[in-house]
Amino acid sequence: MTSTTGEGLRLAEIAAAVGGTVQGDADVRLTGIAPLDRAGPSDLTFLASTKYAKQLAHCGAGGVLVSPELASTPGPCANRIVVAKPHDAMLALIPRFYRAPERPFVGVHPTAVVDPTAVIDADACVEAFTVVGAGVQVSQGCWVGPHVVLGDGARLAAQVRLHAHVTLYPGVVVGPRSIVHSGTRLGSDGFGYHFQDGAHRKIPHVGGCEIGADVEIGANSTIDRGSIDKTVVGDGTKIDNLVHVAHNVRIGRLCLLAAQVGVAGSTRIGDGVVMAGQVGVSGHITIGDRVTLTAQTGVISDVPAGEVWGGFPSRPHRDTLRGYAAMRRLPDLLKRIERLLDREEPE
Amino acid sequence: MTSTTGEGLRLAEIAAAVGGTVQGDADVRLTGIAPLDRAGPSDLTFLASTKYAKQLAHCGAGGVLVSPELASTPGPCANRIVVAKPHDAMLALIPRFYRAPERPFVGVHPTAVVDPTAVIDADACVEAFTVVGAGVQVSQGCWVGPHVVLGDGARLAAQVRLHAHVTLYPGVVVGPRSIVHSGTRLGSDGFGYHFQDGAHRKIPHVGGCEIGADVEIGANSTIDRGSIDKTVVGDGTKIDNLVHVAHNVRIGRLCLLAAQVGVAGSTRIGDGVVMAGQVGVSGHITIGDRVTLTAQTGVISDVPAGEVWGGFPSRPHRDTLRGYAAMRRLPDLLKRIERLLDREEPE
Amino acid sequence: MTSTTGEGLRLAEIAAAVGGTVQGDADVRLTGIAPLDRAGPSDLTFLASTKYAKQLAHCGAGGVLVSPELASTPGPCANRIVVAKPHDAMLALIPRFYRAPERPFVGVHPTAVVDPTAVIDADACVEAFTVVGAGVQVSQGCWVGPHVVLGDGARLAAQVRLHAHVTLYPGVVVGPRSIVHSGTRLGSDGFGYHFQDGAHRKIPHVGGCEIGADVEIGANSTIDRGSIDKTVVGDGTKIDNLVHVAHNVRIGRLCLLAAQVGVAGSTRIGDGVVMAGQVGVSGHITIGDRVTLTAQTGVISDVPAGEVWGGFPSRPHRDTLRGYAAMRRLPDLLKRIERLLDREEPE
Repeated sequence: MTSTTGEGLRLAEIAAAVGGTVQGDADVRLTGIAPLDRAGPSDLTFLASTKYAKQLAHCGAGGVLVSPELASTPGPCANRIVVAKPHDAMLALIPRFYRAPERPFVGVHPTAVVDPTAVIDADACVEAFTVVGAGVQVSQGCWVGPHVVLGDGARLAAQVRLHAHVTLYPGVVVGPRSIVHSGTRLGSDGFGYHFQDGAHRKIPHVGGCEIGADVEIGANSTIDRGSIDKTVVGDGTKIDNLVHVAHNVRIGRLCLLAAQVGVAGSTRIGDGVVMAGQVGVSGHITIGDRVTLTAQTGVISDVPAGEVWGGFPSRPHRDTLRGYAAMRRLPDLLKRIERLLDREEPE
Repeated sequence: MTSTTGEGLRLAEIAAAVGGTVQGDADVRLTGIAPLDRAGPSDLTFLASTKYAKQLAHCGAGGVLVSPELASTPGPCANRIVVAKPHDAMLALIPRFYRAPERPFVGVHPTAVVDPTAVIDADACVEAFTVVGAGVQVSQGCWVGPHVVLGDGARLAAQVRLHAHVTLYPGVVVGPRSIVHSGTRLGSDGFGYHFQDGAHRKIPHVGGCEIGADVEIGANSTIDRGSIDKTVVGDGTKIDNLVHVAHNVRIGRLCLLAAQVGVAGSTRIGDGVVMAGQVGVSGHITIGDRVTLTAQTGVISDVPAGEVWGGFPSRPHRDTLRGYAAMRRLPDLLKRIERLLDREEPE
Repeated sequence: MTSTTGEGLRLAEIAAAVGGTVQGDADVRLTGIAPLDRAGPSDLTFLASTKYAKQLAHCGAGGVLVSPELASTPGPCANRIVVAKPHDAMLALIPRFYRAPERPFVGVHPTAVVDPTAVIDADACVEAFTVVGAGVQVSQGCWVGPHVVLGDGARLAAQVRLHAHVTLYPGVVVGPRSIVHSGTRLGSDGFGYHFQDGAHRKIPHVGGCEIGADVEIGANSTIDRGSIDKTVVGDGTKIDNLVHVAHNVRIGRLCLLAAQVGVAGSTRIGDGVVMAGQVGVSGHITIGDRVTLTAQTGVISDVPAGEVWGGFPSRPHRDTLRGYAAMRRLPDLLKRIERLLDREEPE
């Protein structure tokens, strides 16, 4: 969504859409949404937390969504909509203000190179310079951006969105409604070698790479194909930019992997797992359902379902926090401890 | 290798190929290889470790490679090949079951844009939309995927394989039989500036970037060119996805750099060095031959040859492990220590 | 700069250019610059630190820039230029020895696909297979490499350099003289979801992505667009390879972000901030002006202006160093401490 709908909405219409109460001028017309410190007279903004309340004093917005507790926060903008959850209300309003991006055309761009054995649905869009290999399937409603490479036998289910410069190695499968951002590589060979006769011999990677339904994968990430197994990303899982998923990894449903996470080979990740930025997970281990891993955690052993772990080597987050607290006090104590030891020890 | 050879092999033929002994139906015909928990009646699987022995109880494979110790593990699959090293046997069999990917054609795709001064061997394959700069050399047996960009003066030795979307900046050299995966950038400018008159002035990067023979580099990695020196990756070294190698770095022979490793500028890395995932190495230091760095290690000083180091700042792995163990016990001891100090200290 | 100017310079000319004093043969002609251990008889090299002085003993250079203190360091190369700052002198000489890369042509390559509503300055260069969307502006002096994708409404100010395979999502703005290296993605959707009815619902990203003037961004980095805010990179800031900048982040002027740094959403970074490799910064925090973060630091709270912080969770670098020192001594002390506790504690 990158362009406004143009005409905008009256404050009264906005309030009605989110079930809020108008204060000030119900007829003021707003055409965009912006944060408190950048909103101008034609923008709607929102105040959902006391942390940002003082920004309202200098806010130039034409209207503000505000929670009941913060409704009387001082500030020049008198046009307010009081609503229980201003942030949720703002999210719900985005599609009223901004048009979702649309496919520039339906069909195959004349510059695309398409193997005669590929099957592209008549309702798909394949943009400029895309290369479509033998036996590829592109289903109804797909939007394949420019410069995409679909290796032989790759299959896109309905309404898949591949942004510019994505590569699918041969045989990769992407489930319905999934989105893959620019520059991401799916199905590259795993990092597997066998040391023999003085050299690292490449282990052929003949396994698959399957992305489920409603998955989103950020920009410049890499998901390797399996060696003889499949690498799998479960339905509804979301993966951020620059994430690495190695061969044979199986990720469950509804997980969130933040930017720069790395998961080594053959690891199993349950459903609903959350990994914060730059987490690293070793190979051949199991992360239980609903586990949360805090930022930069290094996991080298199984993590039981439902737990929050952190640190390196990772352990329950509360233990990690106690460890950090102890470490902060250690340097000052150490001098005292050594003096005591010197005095008290028998020899 | 992404498609099966079709006809498959009889169990007796498989046993003969790996020097194993048949149990069960020597005539059963298998057409693929799959892991224990996914193998079907036409698949061969393998059991090499007691860790996975219980999976055999539910395994639907048509045949299983099994070590002598595990030969009588209970399970429905009675067709077994007893062999000393089932995993090695499985690796050896992959090329019997799966065809290696082959070049789709020999020659230059009509959509490629090739400078008239480039020299492309008659036996090379240059795929769609590839851009070949002035003075480029592409040797016998090369396979250059679609959307590759070869900067002026780049040189590919015999049988180099560049996957889709690779960029070689001008003058980059890749040695024989090396493989570069999709989206990797070789020879980009190093990160070098000189603060002068209130701005970071760019240091021109006029050095080279040389990749040796039998190297493999994963997807979306980056290897910068040297400033006035060369950045070098030695023969037989393997580099995983999303790895960063900075300007002037020299990596020796037969190293393994796992995913998301970063090596800062002008560092020297010996032969046979292994770096696990997300390791970071500072600039201007030396990592000796056969060093191993454990996952997420942060190296800020030289590491002597042959050692295993870990942690941040890195030190010998055994010391790091002792440090972690001590840290785990510290919070519980700290309260006792403080009580003792309060009681025992003179003032 | 990848090719030499050909004719080179005489030692006397070099000395005159940098204000140095000649020793040896003032007429020797040199054509390139190389490091001490690789320089040959036609190369100039430099010796700026005692750390490298012993390399001069085996140096085959045709001439060497040397500081007054090191002017009499033994070595076979008698042709020397004594100059106060040999490294600075070397940097100043690079443009005398090497030609800067130049645009291969002015105009739009015939293979580029350009929307009729795009405006491309007559003095811009747009290389092969580039895709230019509706309403795009490409200004005077720009050099857009092959395989670049410029989304609808993207704007390049004067003299912008985009290397091969860069993607600009719709509406991204790049300021004058900025350089973006191969494979970098600007303006991809931020990683934002809203859990509702059993699924992670995508938060539409309608904000912008603005890159200032004189910025350089390395290869395969990703900078997401804002949700309703803008993601901003300030003037003169330099960003290395494989860096991730999340939605709504605002980075100030003249910062340096080394390779594999990650900055989470809505964080504010001041001016002149330096982040070493693999640093991670949490979302919704503030990093003050002129802060330095050491390698692999994990920042989870605000950092005051002017400070040097390190470790995880980050704190002032001197405290981190004391903590590491204490931790190194801890394992040996722990046994003694426990013995003392067992003996001295009342019960």
